[in-house]
Amino acid sequence: MPELCIGVDVGGTYTKIGVVERSGRLRLERRLDSQAQQGPAAFVERVCSVIKAWTSQGVRPVGLGLGIAGDVDSRKGSVRLSPNLPGWAGFDFKRALGRRLRLPVAVENDANAAVFGAYVAQLKRKPRHVVGATLGTGLGGGLVIDGRLHRGATGSAGELGHTKVQPGGELCHCGDRGCLEAYAGGYGILRLARRLALAKPGQAKRLLSICGELDALEPVHLTLAAEAGDPVARQTWIKTGQMLAIGLENFVLIVNPDVVLILGGVSRAGRWILEPIRRHFARQPFRMPFSRARLALADNADAGCVGAALLALEPEARADRC
Amino acid sequence: MPELCIGVDVGGTYTKIGVVERSGRLRLERRLDSQAQQGPAAFVERVCSVIKAWTSQGVRPVGLGLGIAGDVDSRKGSVRLSPNLPGWAGFDFKRALGRRLRLPVAVENDANAAVFGAYVAQLKRKPRHVVGATLGTGLGGGLVIDGRLHRGATGSAGELGHTKVQPGGELCHCGDRGCLEAYAGGYGILRLARRLALAKPGQAKRLLSICGELDALEPVHLTLAAEAGDPVARQTWIKTGQMLAIGLENFVLIVNPDVVLILGGVSRAGRWILEPIRRHFARQPFRMPFSRARLALADNADAGCVGAALLALEPEARADRC
Repeated sequence: MPELCIGVDVGGTYTKIGVVERSGRLRLERRLDSQAQQGPAAFVERVCSVIKAWTSQGVRPVGLGLGIAGDVDSRKGSVRLSPNLPGWAGFDFKRALGRRLRLPVAVENDANAAVFGAYVAQLKRKPRHVVGATLGTGLGGGLVIDGRLHRGATGSAGELGHTKVQPGGELCHCGDRGCLEAYAGGYGILRLARRLALAKPGQAKRLLSICGELDALEPVHLTLAAEAGDPVARQTWIKTGQMLAIGLENFVLIVNPDVVLILGGVSRAGRWILEPIRRHFARQPFRMPFSRARLALADNADAGCVGAALLALEPEARADRC
Repeated sequence: MPELCIGVDVGGTYTKIGVVERSGRLRLERRLDSQAQQGPAAFVERVCSVIKAWTSQGVRPVGLGLGIAGDVDSRKGSVRLSPNLPGWAGFDFKRALGRRLRLPVAVENDANAAVFGAYVAQLKRKPRHVVGATLGTGLGGGLVIDGRLHRGATGSAGELGHTKVQPGGELCHCGDRGCLEAYAGGYGILRLARRLALAKPGQAKRLLSICGELDALEPVHLTLAAEAGDPVARQTWIKTGQMLAIGLENFVLIVNPDVVLILGGVSRAGRWILEPIRRHFARQPFRMPFSRARLALADNADAGCVGAALLALEPEARADRC
């Protein structure tokens, strides 16, 4: 029986818990409401009861990894700041889970975990250097350097979403202007689409027939409308791809990766987004890093859960076992 | 007697050759005209005769490192592209120097070498993660991750100068627009100063009295004029610092370093440049990486030579000894 690990991907609304093999294969999974307002201790209880149900059926995990949106202190095993999980900052997940389960526990930023998960499950750990962008409501990023997750000095590395692609430009949820997230995070994409649809309602008829009204617009409507030939939806994806291309260009120039991964729900709009990025990379005057960096979509919705689990198997998580 | 290494810092005009201790201390040095037009084989001959003169006096180097501006293939030990050294692309420096001197040879991009040199000589290898910008005619960058130079998939990592800080903005020497180098490389700084001086000649009187005429303007004149209170010179440095701050902000968000090093001739304008960067970092909404990243000037003009030498002592250079 292969070595198994537990992955927990905590979102503001839902949490996914899974049993993961070392290869990255997800064997079992369970979805919970996060019930963030009940606080982190109650959340830990609920996670532990899911795991105990599994262990009573013979599952023998050797570690547990937790991926959480926000600024995570992976050494302490806590969250410094997480706008989606109010009141969770400072809670010591490593200690709470480690004591209850007697397992090594890794706590990590969710985008870092997802990029690491896709690196193992999809890329089979083969490339040396990988950068990834996770497209969701926000926009996260992660780096694998020499086959290991690069966390940086404070665990904050890979904050691609707040790199500037148009200084002084669109307002970002962080309060600054011109961040990549303000253009290629879900809310930035929807803002642009609404603006275009209001300016040119005649070119957004298909889009409007799909979403009903602009207030109900979701990225998936834009993907469907683009496929149906809606000009506003197509323009939205092209512009989004162009802004994402600038952010990824900077990421590539700094890290010089073998692979650039694009993950997350919005990545289902893959063909609409990838084309402007490919075109942008192809016309870079400084060729070598761009001809090397292979663009890849990671459509695995479990990457965050898988990556969190696998991080508990990495040497640093095992070294400081509770 | 401490272990000694040879460092060679090759510029378009001059080359510095030095004997360096493992601590980063420069023991001997010699400056040559690069005579780039004579080609790389003649250059290697001239470097070897300097070194042979030293060895005949009892210097016993254990390795040699070469730092060259351009896109360097450090594994092959050659330059892929070097606008300042026409005709040098493809020459196998590792083989040519290794055979003549029977030493391990490292060949590296000059900015990477300089950042590594300052990391060892000034920071004593203490921080784990360091990013650096080298300010000269162009603008280079380098990364130290977990105490080792990060070269990336093709040896092109750390190309900070061509990250975009104002997409579609000023024209860069690379042919693209909006690169950091187009604002904070020497030629970008001079372009801005000339433009401001022409627009407001009454505010550039001190500057003009220092440089004589705008065609003769050099960065050092801008530093002197700023110190003397010249408004155009001060404005130039402030704007330069602001653009550099955006590039460094992106660098910090991606790498999350312990230290941000600023190296090179222009860094003598330190106080004028650092202040806008400090202010920019202090108002970042995402605090943790910016409160951690310590800004430091590295005023050591030998960092490139020292770093090249020290890279020849790194395990990877010794592993593939010729």
